[in-house]
Amino acid sequence: MIQPQSVGVVEARTARFSAPLALKSGGTLDEYELVYETYGELNADRSNAVLVCHALSGSHHVAGHYADEPSNVGWWDNLIGPGKPLDTRRFFVIGVNNLGGCHGTTGPRSINPATGRHWGADFPFVTVEDWVTAQARLADMLGIERFAAVVGGSLGGMQAVSWSLQYPDRVANVVAIASAPKLSTQNIAFNEVARQAILSDPDFHGGHYYEHGVVPRNGLKLARMIGHITYLSDDSLAEKFGRSLRHGKALYSFDVEFEIESYLRYQGDKFAGFFDANTYLLTTKALDYFDPAFEHGGNLPAALARSRADFLVVSFTTDWRFSPSRSQELVYALLHNRRNVSYAEIDCAAGHDSFLLDDVHYHSVLRSYFDRIRT
Amino acid sequence: MIQPQSVGVVEARTARFSAPLALKSGGTLDEYELVYETYGELNADRSNAVLVCHALSGSHHVAGHYADEPSNVGWWDNLIGPGKPLDTRRFFVIGVNNLGGCHGTTGPRSINPATGRHWGADFPFVTVEDWVTAQARLADMLGIERFAAVVGGSLGGMQAVSWSLQYPDRVANVVAIASAPKLSTQNIAFNEVARQAILSDPDFHGGHYYEHGVVPRNGLKLARMIGHITYLSDDSLAEKFGRSLRHGKALYSFDVEFEIESYLRYQGDKFAGFFDANTYLLTTKALDYFDPAFEHGGNLPAALARSRADFLVVSFTTDWRFSPSRSQELVYALLHNRRNVSYAEIDCAAGHDSFLLDDVHYHSVLRSYFDRIRT
Repeated sequence: MIQPQSVGVVEARTARFSAPLALKSGGTLDEYELVYETYGELNADRSNAVLVCHALSGSHHVAGHYADEPSNVGWWDNLIGPGKPLDTRRFFVIGVNNLGGCHGTTGPRSINPATGRHWGADFPFVTVEDWVTAQARLADMLGIERFAAVVGGSLGGMQAVSWSLQYPDRVANVVAIASAPKLSTQNIAFNEVARQAILSDPDFHGGHYYEHGVVPRNGLKLARMIGHITYLSDDSLAEKFGRSLRHGKALYSFDVEFEIESYLRYQGDKFAGFFDANTYLLTTKALDYFDPAFEHGGNLPAALARSRADFLVVSFTTDWRFSPSRSQELVYALLHNRRNVSYAEIDCAAGHDSFLLDDVHYHSVLRSYFDRIRT
Repeated sequence: MIQPQSVGVVEARTARFSAPLALKSGGTLDEYELVYETYGELNADRSNAVLVCHALSGSHHVAGHYADEPSNVGWWDNLIGPGKPLDTRRFFVIGVNNLGGCHGTTGPRSINPATGRHWGADFPFVTVEDWVTAQARLADMLGIERFAAVVGGSLGGMQAVSWSLQYPDRVANVVAIASAPKLSTQNIAFNEVARQAILSDPDFHGGHYYEHGVVPRNGLKLARMIGHITYLSDDSLAEKFGRSLRHGKALYSFDVEFEIESYLRYQGDKFAGFFDANTYLLTTKALDYFDPAFEHGGNLPAALARSRADFLVVSFTTDWRFSPSRSQELVYALLHNRRNVSYAEIDCAAGHDSFLLDDVHYHSVLRSYFDRIRT
């Protein structure tokens, strides 16, 4: 076993598609671009490809760093590389930015060829299923008939599950981490407050803020602050910040007093500085809508009957956004269909965001699972 | 046992105080008014008085209804009345609106006598301790030397606990329901997002919106929506609203689709229509600051050593805002001081808001405890 290494310098590429894409919402994208990255080498059999799907605020930049931006490290760099759990000496790994995104893939910030202006609020609603369809077209372009695995955390895990339903013959293994077969009422409720914060920001301008030279920064900041609370566990917040007072005592002011206030404001400001508000809106709606059991009268086992993949499902004890019981729903429905399912519930204090960390047990489970995948 | 009845028609009264009140924040209120209501009769020994403290959005209107507003029923009407758990045939019950409030008691919406204008952002910060001090002055005015009980849920429970520390000889029983000895980091985090929503509303005008003929309605609406999610359990939201779609299918729109969205918007709008944003800000800060152990190096048993009261502590299994473990901290600290403590953890699905409901086990515990109080 070698010492785990980084994949090193990576480059984003752009794939152009001119065949119209019919969307679940009824709209159509006549042409679009997907930005993606790859790590490792596709083998001669084209049998070692692994697709990594991103969550709400992720992107195609999954591992490595850019030559001119050494500190811009991929969001799952701890997982992917030579000697890492998802070992790029064996696997050809692909990261792709989803449609409607704001990291280069065609989205609301792109120019609408029909008008010559930013899409803005006119960008069509996109769903998990649409993303998967677009990813499949990218796979076609790269000559990948069947993925060794499709992997994702949170919303990324939903895409991985949807792969096994939309293209059952094109995915051998699904790895769904800190995910759920659908959002709970509470999940939707938090998304709704985040959306209302953005939609009601005077700088939103009905989603056409690009034309006004502004962004709904404040609404996006509030949305991210709300989200951030739900990504972390009560205990991890207490561990990190407790009730620490910046000035050692109460100053009776609305400026930062408790350190947690400073942290949330900083995270909100940082996010609002680069992320697109329309992408945030569309992505939270994609999360809300995802529910493969809906067309089967709420019967999840019936919905999963199409799947042919083997599954690894992972949850985290302190994740209250997508709690272990949500992963277990998925596991039970798969077992009902006599699928091969491995399930691990990892005792990790960090809440939903645990899926991004390199907890030793968690990474051991992933390493062991990937090691067993035949290519 | 009689059939439980309403206390019937009630009237709010106003108590005027002209002795300056020194506040924990360092400020002073030279004069102020407290609005209050009473139910039942004070006995000859003046030994049967029970003070009910309200939570974030509550008021002095605890039971009964107004002659000209029969549908305006007090927020704890199910608990208080002839034959109800807190029986007004035995007890003289007082509800009081706290300083900084917006239901008639002196607060940011009142006129500052020094300027002749609304206090607005110039209203001083008020704390749980200040509220208790003001309540004690009201007790003086009403000729009540010692309360048979001080009762409260949530933030109201914090006031009840503080009573036993500030005036150990003036309260025989403390009933603290769905409460906590201090906010957790996560609690403060949710409060902070709510405050930022209000403070960043363009209609906030630095807290002097009254002068501009507007209110920061949108910020207050968002704040209430966030709060509302935390008052209910995940399960009770699922039970009430599930993933019900208003139109039976996805319309791919930012208008209401899921029923939970409609509910949250309605609750937010309703609240923003009557509650004062400055009161909301001040009250969330009072919540954040409350921490009787702070001056004892975080040692809660040391902080509670002054208390002489008997205690009833009640928590609810599904309350994730102030979970049972927070109530248990209080219980352990009281036991450490060899206080008489009764503790009940009620299996109720409704989350934090359970304290407002008439769950049969919960109300049986309260009835039994109040019945045992000697007057």
